[in-house]
Amino acid sequence: MKSKAYSVKDSRAFVEAFTRTPYGSGPLDGMTFAVKDNIDLAGTRTSYGSKSWQDAHADAVHNALCVEQLLGAGASCVGKTIADEFTYSLTGENPFFGTPLNPRAPDRVPGGSSSGSASAVACEICDFAIGTDSAGSIRVPASFCGVWGMRPTLHRISEAGVLPFMPSVSTVGAFANRIDVLEQVMRVLLRSRPKPFDGIRNIFLLEDAFDLADNAVQAAVTHRISELSRAHKVTVSRIKANDIFGNDYDLSAANERALRILQTAEFASSVGNWIDTVGAEVSPGFALAYQNVQHQDRTAVNEALDLCEYLFSRILDFMGPNDLICTPTTPLPAPLKASMTSATQFQNFYDRTMALTSFAGVGRLPEISIPAATVDGLPVGVSLIARHYEDEFLLDAAKLLFAHDSERRPD
Amino acid sequence: MKSKAYSVKDSRAFVEAFTRTPYGSGPLDGMTFAVKDNIDLAGTRTSYGSKSWQDAHADAVHNALCVEQLLGAGASCVGKTIADEFTYSLTGENPFFGTPLNPRAPDRVPGGSSSGSASAVACEICDFAIGTDSAGSIRVPASFCGVWGMRPTLHRISEAGVLPFMPSVSTVGAFANRIDVLEQVMRVLLRSRPKPFDGIRNIFLLEDAFDLADNAVQAAVTHRISELSRAHKVTVSRIKANDIFGNDYDLSAANERALRILQTAEFASSVGNWIDTVGAEVSPGFALAYQNVQHQDRTAVNEALDLCEYLFSRILDFMGPNDLICTPTTPLPAPLKASMTSATQFQNFYDRTMALTSFAGVGRLPEISIPAATVDGLPVGVSLIARHYEDEFLLDAAKLLFAHDSERRPD
Repeated sequence: MKSKAYSVKDSRAFVEAFTRTPYGSGPLDGMTFAVKDNIDLAGTRTSYGSKSWQDAHADAVHNALCVEQLLGAGASCVGKTIADEFTYSLTGENPFFGTPLNPRAPDRVPGGSSSGSASAVACEICDFAIGTDSAGSIRVPASFCGVWGMRPTLHRISEAGVLPFMPSVSTVGAFANRIDVLEQVMRVLLRSRPKPFDGIRNIFLLEDAFDLADNAVQAAVTHRISELSRAHKVTVSRIKANDIFGNDYDLSAANERALRILQTAEFASSVGNWIDTVGAEVSPGFALAYQNVQHQDRTAVNEALDLCEYLFSRILDFMGPNDLICTPTTPLPAPLKASMTSATQFQNFYDRTMALTSFAGVGRLPEISIPAATVDGLPVGVSLIARHYEDEFLLDAAKLLFAHDSERRPD
Repeated sequence: MKSKAYSVKDSRAFVEAFTRTPYGSGPLDGMTFAVKDNIDLAGTRTSYGSKSWQDAHADAVHNALCVEQLLGAGASCVGKTIADEFTYSLTGENPFFGTPLNPRAPDRVPGGSSSGSASAVACEICDFAIGTDSAGSIRVPASFCGVWGMRPTLHRISEAGVLPFMPSVSTVGAFANRIDVLEQVMRVLLRSRPKPFDGIRNIFLLEDAFDLADNAVQAAVTHRISELSRAHKVTVSRIKANDIFGNDYDLSAANERALRILQTAEFASSVGNWIDTVGAEVSPGFALAYQNVQHQDRTAVNEALDLCEYLFSRILDFMGPNDLICTPTTPLPAPLKASMTSATQFQNFYDRTMALTSFAGVGRLPEISIPAATVDGLPVGVSLIARHYEDEFLLDAAKLLFAHDSERRPD
């Protein structure tokens, strides 16, 4: 492990730093954590990544339930971390609170919307951090910052005290620098019960997902997963989305129909009410994205939900409890800061990224992004996805394959 | 079917009545529905059953996603229905908005917290109504008012635009006077995909749940389920909670530990923040109940979540996909209005009722309350509970057993 190289100030990851001591003892004794600023912590004001929201709301009186779980299991909280504006972005560039440092690539974005939580962990300011993930808000910054990040099965962790966003896909999860820490944290949050690990039956490389990625990303991820599965004698095979969903299934198009429709419709129903009512001051970038919310075709909601149910049920039919699907976490490493200046560039980034992240999102599936590949010295995550409710298997499988690997850091 | 006997005014079920025409066509064409007042409807102000909340908030700009689904499938909305104060009650007596009529027992409470939705359906003002259920807020008023009510698998219906309450157990569901209507509505909300119905393998009568009920309720429910299962040649057997959970398992005690701890902790994290911050004006009854929220032992949160996971996993192990568990929905018929005047009477009512309702609540399971029994002319629900995600089987099974039965109404 590297020694701590970054201060809280250097990391630019925090809205506010402080110490909250644990009130219980348990598996997280002695560990420290940070909390994404869309999750309530008593005595602090949750910003939701928005100055308007922060100004209009009072300090939280109660902790979110997930924070209580961590404080009750022995961990100390060291602060609240920056989130993208209303958590509605995957880049990590917040015009009000700044862009948290990506210590593996300081001229590049950290990824969002759980940007500060990923940065705080990557900067080794705390042992782990919690965040939320809908369209990739844990997985994308984990991939870009070179840390472990897990999005568990949809709604397995309580969202009491977490600001509502996109209930059909949003879920609480965590970041860490090491699989053993991530595992302990997730087992506390998930209340995992002991279950024997019988090994991995299949790793399926989802070709459509690889095809969405840069060639160098495809090569790096394929190389690492092949190398490790060989070492651990696990069967790896290539599949196409058609093998799961039937003929002529286009992963990108399905994403477009399901995730985007739900994202705009559910965002409108959850946060949009407040934004529209108070006429909230928002950044120009958010205002542009929000036009999609305001001009959405809400008659498409049932069609999008049908597609979600279809995807979910076909994946359940396809995957066994000991199977994994492997994809690159993101189609590319972190873009340069302020590099996406046109609507077309944004559109291209989101289309490609969400086509990947929507698979587990729409499928309600657990996914771990593993910091196990690099492209030109930049981190890119290797993602493992397990069956619905097989979070514990996923942690065991990731540990089997990558436990020794994860301490090898890109220099 | 009876002809419509009650006006909106007679029912006392509505906060506001109006007509919103559908913007799509589908399986609910021509049907009308009402919406519990913790679910957003564009252009109306969601009260959450609280005058303070109503005064402090603006009209909703967007519909909740579930409302969009219904309007998109051809149904018209006829109004917003009264909920208990902050939906934190099972009686249906709201000190600000009044007590909706229980047309089957006009001197008795309708049950809560989805009191107005149950009443509107029982009064035949609309074909169906939507509500929410955590500790029984759909099932209890369905039982007391003699209508069908379904709580589906936890979080299968989007909660975008539904006020947060108790995320570990809260779910959106519906009421109807007929199983065919309930089925159509639930299939629209759940986006059910066609699945063959292979009949019912077992009906397990959960003795611990029956033991919690009045003798007359036990007898009435046992009689109806035995009669119908015999007619349909379905195996009925008696089980104890110990058969599912192991030796010396006390259903009431487990409920006490899990559901109550989570209820107070999650209510604090979700709604308590606002109540405490603004010093909301609340009724004396709510203030009394809220003391539990304020004085809770939050160090017990992880223990309660452990118990939930334990219950969930044991029930999954015990039940097959074609199995049903049967209980009385409530331990007693609707109490007389204003009859619970002491803390002890409240405590007794809630202890017994929640010991029953917590089973599906903590287990994240789908449950239907069927208006198929009466005690001294008062309705009591027969509950059928299915495995996690077996909502469609549950609807098919309820239809098989009770389709012809549900039109027999107590006079």
